[in-house]
Amino acid sequence: MPDLATRFAANPILRPADVVPSAPGLRVECLLNPGAFRYRGRTGLLLRVAERPPQTETHVSTPVLDPAAPGGVRIVSVRRDDPELSSSDPRLFTWKGVDYLTTLSHLRLAWSDDGEHFTVEPVPTLVGEGPQEAFGIEDCRVTTCADGTYLLTYTAVSADGVGVGCIATRDWKSFERRGMIIPPHNKDCAIFAEPIAGRHWCLHRPSGVGLGGNFIWAASSPDLLHWGGHRCIARTRPGMWDSERIGAGCAPIRTPGGWLEIYHGSDRKRYCLGALLLDLDDPAKVIARSREPIMEPSAPCEQTGFFGHVVFTNGHVVDGDRISMYYGAADEVICGAHLSIRDILASLGH
Amino acid sequence: MPDLATRFAANPILRPADVVPSAPGLRVECLLNPGAFRYRGRTGLLLRVAERPPQTETHVSTPVLDPAAPGGVRIVSVRRDDPELSSSDPRLFTWKGVDYLTTLSHLRLAWSDDGEHFTVEPVPTLVGEGPQEAFGIEDCRVTTCADGTYLLTYTAVSADGVGVGCIATRDWKSFERRGMIIPPHNKDCAIFAEPIAGRHWCLHRPSGVGLGGNFIWAASSPDLLHWGGHRCIARTRPGMWDSERIGAGCAPIRTPGGWLEIYHGSDRKRYCLGALLLDLDDPAKVIARSREPIMEPSAPCEQTGFFGHVVFTNGHVVDGDRISMYYGAADEVICGAHLSIRDILASLGH
Repeated sequence: MPDLATRFAANPILRPADVVPSAPGLRVECLLNPGAFRYRGRTGLLLRVAERPPQTETHVSTPVLDPAAPGGVRIVSVRRDDPELSSSDPRLFTWKGVDYLTTLSHLRLAWSDDGEHFTVEPVPTLVGEGPQEAFGIEDCRVTTCADGTYLLTYTAVSADGVGVGCIATRDWKSFERRGMIIPPHNKDCAIFAEPIAGRHWCLHRPSGVGLGGNFIWAASSPDLLHWGGHRCIARTRPGMWDSERIGAGCAPIRTPGGWLEIYHGSDRKRYCLGALLLDLDDPAKVIARSREPIMEPSAPCEQTGFFGHVVFTNGHVVDGDRISMYYGAADEVICGAHLSIRDILASLGH
Repeated sequence: MPDLATRFAANPILRPADVVPSAPGLRVECLLNPGAFRYRGRTGLLLRVAERPPQTETHVSTPVLDPAAPGGVRIVSVRRDDPELSSSDPRLFTWKGVDYLTTLSHLRLAWSDDGEHFTVEPVPTLVGEGPQEAFGIEDCRVTTCADGTYLLTYTAVSADGVGVGCIATRDWKSFERRGMIIPPHNKDCAIFAEPIAGRHWCLHRPSGVGLGGNFIWAASSPDLLHWGGHRCIARTRPGMWDSERIGAGCAPIRTPGGWLEIYHGSDRKRYCLGALLLDLDDPAKVIARSREPIMEPSAPCEQTGFFGHVVFTNGHVVDGDRISMYYGAADEVICGAHLSIRDILASLGH
């Protein structure tokens, strides 16, 4: 099946070279997985900017947030021939028994009048704060609430684990930090834009140790800060494109037949996108699910990069039937595509 | 250092043979880690009872809860020479790529007039319910609230993962199920018996995938159902007795100098007990922590059993300075010991 996405002609729309590093001595290695929203007529993206010092033949170096260090950033630098260094994944390494990310991510705003050409702000918008975010903040979903509040749910990373942090803003200038709302190991948290029967809902993705897997769960909340009633709603499917891990994209889209959620799935070889249709009154109930991906990594910049064969989305804006979806390609550049809600529902048999 | 526990003379106080199996064809393999409380002048224990069919030379068999099966229990039976069977831990096995526990646990009440001699009820008190508890419920903490409510927090186990379920009761006859309050992977959740500055608190233990470890976290709640503000408060300590994993016991004890929490720690070789002293106003702040265990597996029934070299507690009752602590020994039998709050605080330098 050909995929349902009409890619922007100008893809990639943002590359690392378009972003000014946050500090001297750092280099922007990758742009990833932006949150997306509209504010005062413009489209905003909240990019994940991943930085590190230039790597050398002799050393692996990575930045870690540390309030005691000059500029708040400490550089961990390890000789490549250090017997206590090991690494098999471009995204992390282990040294002296401690895991580190190879890059440090912050979140940065980019703005556009037409939704395709973006200007990136010259400085970081949000950086990790406190011990639970010492290794940075990543992959921010932006939920636009009817009262004008934007809810930002992002991955908070540290040596203590990987959980979901929440920040609220109304004007993209002042930000209210709300702490870690879902404990480790958890990512891919998307809050629904409106309450259902008086309760707020979210999707999230715990990862299992031993029993369990990388499945999508739902939870509910009275106040958006405290979450309970956790239920597993979708599992990986052996032998299929989403056999290894799945995770929600951004806030689901309300349609007459149910909540439409675009999610990512991986089978170890690549990350594709698919769709879930959730019951309007009980979003923990899955009505339909893509048998085949609605989008696969096929463009050159999706197949080759920091981590190849990846399309990953956690941000879109919707105009009628048209979804303008923003996505990270090969964990290195930002791309955009249009999808039709009608087409996705039809692919689900609805 | 000799440990601080004075063991009951009659240890073990309960053995598998003291418990009637829940169904014909099942055998009680282990008794584990009881919650403890007082009710109408008696001491109650809420035992974890682990059952399975008698194992044979040719087959490995384990029960799984399944509403569609007769009696609600389906037996998974696998030939020992099945090439798709693998097992390296007495507590679980993998078959056709799916993980199973080797036993199915339910919770069962036992009652005592003197706190040392217990009579076990003839039938299960609580069994797993719904898909998130298909592999059973385990290791229940009982928090006794001032209003007469008992809050039960237990490990809910299924192929979807391992999380924390909550049940409330006032009379130990009718039980209100409150769903999963902390999502996977999580265990060892102990709710504080009283709110602090208007908020409820708990300790819990996420387990990391990649970054993070088996550390103790704190969280708070407006309603005991929904939890947020997650913070890591205590980590494993390399080279020490709690280097591999730690987890809270039951509800902490209020002392003038802070909340006293007995916790377990493992270094891969054995499980010991230690203590944490937490700030009265901000329980996420650790004031003191045991450098050496306050109790180590030393008695024969603690050293040899289903899983040897284990003392593990999640239940005690307190009378003045005296803690009557109940614990699982070698994952097979239930024991008791007395400890002095003064002695533990002195060992912490307080």
